[in-house]
Amino acid sequence: MDGSIAPVLQTAEPLAVLAGGGALPVIVAAAAVRAGRPVMVIGIRGEADEEITAFPHKWVKWGEVGRLLAALRFHRAQDLVLVGRISSRPDYLSMSLDRGGSLVRQAILRIFNGGDNSVLLGAVRLFESRGFRIVGAHEIARELVVPASWLSRVQAIPRDLRDGEMAFGAAKAIGRLDIGQAAVAIAGRVVALEGAEGTDGMLERVAALRACGRIRWQGKAGALGKCAKPHQDLRVDMPTIGPETVRAVAAAGLAGIVVEAGQVMIAEREETIRLANNLGLFLVARESDAEGDV
Amino acid sequence: MDGSIAPVLQTAEPLAVLAGGGALPVIVAAAAVRAGRPVMVIGIRGEADEEITAFPHKWVKWGEVGRLLAALRFHRAQDLVLVGRISSRPDYLSMSLDRGGSLVRQAILRIFNGGDNSVLLGAVRLFESRGFRIVGAHEIARELVVPASWLSRVQAIPRDLRDGEMAFGAAKAIGRLDIGQAAVAIAGRVVALEGAEGTDGMLERVAALRACGRIRWQGKAGALGKCAKPHQDLRVDMPTIGPETVRAVAAAGLAGIVVEAGQVMIAEREETIRLANNLGLFLVARESDAEGDV
Repeated sequence: MDGSIAPVLQTAEPLAVLAGGGALPVIVAAAAVRAGRPVMVIGIRGEADEEITAFPHKWVKWGEVGRLLAALRFHRAQDLVLVGRISSRPDYLSMSLDRGGSLVRQAILRIFNGGDNSVLLGAVRLFESRGFRIVGAHEIARELVVPASWLSRVQAIPRDLRDGEMAFGAAKAIGRLDIGQAAVAIAGRVVALEGAEGTDGMLERVAALRACGRIRWQGKAGALGKCAKPHQDLRVDMPTIGPETVRAVAAAGLAGIVVEAGQVMIAEREETIRLANNLGLFLVARESDAEGDV
Repeated sequence: MDGSIAPVLQTAEPLAVLAGGGALPVIVAAAAVRAGRPVMVIGIRGEADEEITAFPHKWVKWGEVGRLLAALRFHRAQDLVLVGRISSRPDYLSMSLDRGGSLVRQAILRIFNGGDNSVLLGAVRLFESRGFRIVGAHEIARELVVPASWLSRVQAIPRDLRDGEMAFGAAKAIGRLDIGQAAVAIAGRVVALEGAEGTDGMLERVAALRACGRIRWQGKAGALGKCAKPHQDLRVDMPTIGPETVRAVAAAGLAGIVVEAGQVMIAEREETIRLANNLGLFLVARESDAEGDV
């Protein structure tokens, strides 16, 4: 944010980016290159965008752990960013493990038996136990997070801003229970809490509840609140919003978005803010209150 | 439960039942009649079942507040039970107020401006300010709530019972935030929290998330937890489960249900338990832990 170079970039050692889908892997790779750090992008087949081919890259399939580890070692990469959307959740039973994968079969089995949320954290442990260092996308591309600030030109009326604060507080509360990280409030009432469906799924639900009259409030009102869970591993599992989120918030008839400053990534920030302004939505980043204070 | 007659029934004064949909109004009316208390059922047109016509009854439309108050006064009913499902949320703008309704227009406007949840509480205040006493359905038909007990013949494996406890704890936590009263946990993870969509809507979501692989756990697993919010007005807004809930829990692939003893109504209890047994689901009522302990 301040134009200085992040400490993690002040090295000539190569940085590996294990890339899922969406624009984030390219943003991270470009930020590293801009800072003069060599980059190696490893795209997950069927997930990563073609745009990663603008960088030195390799493709791996789910389960090709041996191929992945070999590529990392060949390029002498010790620092690894895991970034991007994973749409097809890997299924251990249908995953064809290569030789390296078979060697870590026990670790992989433990990952998949632990339930959805443990997949990423299991992957982190797997890489760390082999000497790699996991680096957060926002440590490389620091513009992905924002300080406390009003981001949209659009302002909020007091009622909608109160809803944003209420939704933010509810999101923080369920985050402390390690459940979800987002909530929606409309006209002084929390109407939706995020579970396994994710933020976009929750916003679709709010749109549906308004369409069928179950939420009776007419016209643009209410807000989305989104924050990090207190014990979230921000290196691999940072809450993220982007243009899609803004579109879903508009479709749900909400008036704006309140995110946690420094803890929520804004993918494609310029486009996200432009879209919020065009759709008449407010977008604000706020600090979290002291623990237990919300 | 113990066969004694509830204190509220030890009077020959008529009891009025303002009836929404479903079996509950008839169950309440029948319980009063069994105890020797005269009953007057006032069915909300388009909501209440035809079965209410087995009792002395009158029909009113939304907004016919004057007609309703006149009927209550004519029958000298001071005690009033508000019970049954309201599927079509009343819309103040489309509601044709009768003369009595017009006189209480300000009160009704206040009710509708307060958001969904306040409709019932506003109705309570409206009736109480006119000298009526609101009685809970479970005070009349005491068999609607159950003490702490294992209700199904079906037992739970430890993993599913832990999920039930986890879901119950999450439901209690969001209840303390005055948001919802139910949650679902599967394999050690809370996957859904109830908001404005209601319990059935939440269970449909869990079914959909499993169908699309977003919740990857295969086979019957997990549980629904349901409890009262700490400040819920149990006279008019008691959490309820019934055969439909059991069917929705089975459709969501869950293994059972944990409800709060004494605080959650079980409509059509025999049918509900029979159905749980037939579908292989456990059903248990437990006490709530001390406040703040969950």
